[in-house]
Amino acid sequence: MSYLKQISDKELKEGIEHFIQEAKGKYVPSVTLDTVIFGFHDNKLKVLLLRFAQTAHFILPGGYLSKDEDLDMAALRVLRERTGLDNIFLEQFYTSGKKNRTSNSIVSQLMKDLLGNLPADHWFNQRFVSVCYYALVDDTKVNPKPEPFFTEFKWFDIEAIPVLLYDHNLIVEKALKRLQTDLDTKLVGSKLMRDSFTMNELQKLYEAVFQHPFVRTNFQRKMLSLGILERLEKQYTGKSHKAPYLYRFTKDPLED
Amino acid sequence: MSYLKQISDKELKEGIEHFIQEAKGKYVPSVTLDTVIFGFHDNKLKVLLLRFAQTAHFILPGGYLSKDEDLDMAALRVLRERTGLDNIFLEQFYTSGKKNRTSNSIVSQLMKDLLGNLPADHWFNQRFVSVCYYALVDDTKVNPKPEPFFTEFKWFDIEAIPVLLYDHNLIVEKALKRLQTDLDTKLVGSKLMRDSFTMNELQKLYEAVFQHPFVRTNFQRKMLSLGILERLEKQYTGKSHKAPYLYRFTKDPLED
Repeated sequence: MSYLKQISDKELKEGIEHFIQEAKGKYVPSVTLDTVIFGFHDNKLKVLLLRFAQTAHFILPGGYLSKDEDLDMAALRVLRERTGLDNIFLEQFYTSGKKNRTSNSIVSQLMKDLLGNLPADHWFNQRFVSVCYYALVDDTKVNPKPEPFFTEFKWFDIEAIPVLLYDHNLIVEKALKRLQTDLDTKLVGSKLMRDSFTMNELQKLYEAVFQHPFVRTNFQRKMLSLGILERLEKQYTGKSHKAPYLYRFTKDPLED
Repeated sequence: MSYLKQISDKELKEGIEHFIQEAKGKYVPSVTLDTVIFGFHDNKLKVLLLRFAQTAHFILPGGYLSKDEDLDMAALRVLRERTGLDNIFLEQFYTSGKKNRTSNSIVSQLMKDLLGNLPADHWFNQRFVSVCYYALVDDTKVNPKPEPFFTEFKWFDIEAIPVLLYDHNLIVEKALKRLQTDLDTKLVGSKLMRDSFTMNELQKLYEAVFQHPFVRTNFQRKMLSLGILERLEKQYTGKSHKAPYLYRFTKDPLED
């Protein structure tokens, strides 16, 4: 699913002014949240991105931390607001804090064009440290709703991420590295697979995440040695008996 | 190394007032840094803690983020200021952001006693999100200098960490979990060992970090299979030929 819409400069300006008004005193200063939302589809690892209005550039879905909200709760809320999904696997993986990470961007120029020069100490103008989470979602269930500043919502192949705003390419890179570690150590793969799957389908997931092929026999041996997969009985279908076995995860590896 | 000193209420009050004065406008609001400093000594994994003046409680060494400073640079500076060490292995592992994580603490009560009621929106009174780093250091090289708010500097066994201020026990727990993962995946052990060591000494490090014993033969097989250890030639010492082999890391696993 995706959307595409048009917005005029006037609408954007009003949207931003409204947002700044609403935000006044509501959020913890200097802290944002960004989420790298991964899906797995057609044997490709995908990342969800939003196009910032009146620019050609995409950005990670993100938001701010309310003063009365725990950080993890804020990450769940941001994800719910952006994707419509609840109860999602969400993992904090990095906090990005280079001093110039958001300054001199196309967005700051756009803001200047629309709003004039905001005072240097204005809330919107300050330096933000971004706490980053990654999410693993079923991309077919994501139901984006259009939002004031974003005119497009799109899944990108991990190998074809465009140049993003701010330092968001770096953040995607860090998220992928962490997903690789977590796939091996926390076995988060179950979050990206259907309930049952062939060994070949599981291998495709690992190849998409690690971005290189695995030898089939080695992969199968490694996976089976982990003791987390159950082979399902073959059901008689009248079709070829050469249909591959189906597997499922015996338990949620994250619930221990 | 450690220190212990006395400070009067008056000195502490003046120290804090001076700090607040100096801090004004200097730091990014709402963001602190905390560091879990690990050392390995006498086969024990140790953590460095500071005792907060006029309390019985210890706290992680930490600091604030200057407005003109990258986050990672701030972490290095904080560590340098607290330990005298430069060029240390430092890894960001977690950002702690529960809304009440520092409120209603013994420290806030102490501040109130010393300074009276600060305004609710005072810089010192605000909610802080803490970006946490862990460091691996040679504890014999740590050279703490006394600081205004801290009256004791001490290494604690990981198994005997006292009740810490704020949510710092949780942060130490998270740091240990991350160290366990990094020891296996990033092979950070070299940062905690001398240049050469016996297999038994390396096993002691792993046992201290994972907090359970390993079977000697399995451990040796696993370590040698990683291809990161070089066995040194035995030198003729005139002593027993049964002296164990010494090993060293063939390369810095982190430099790739």
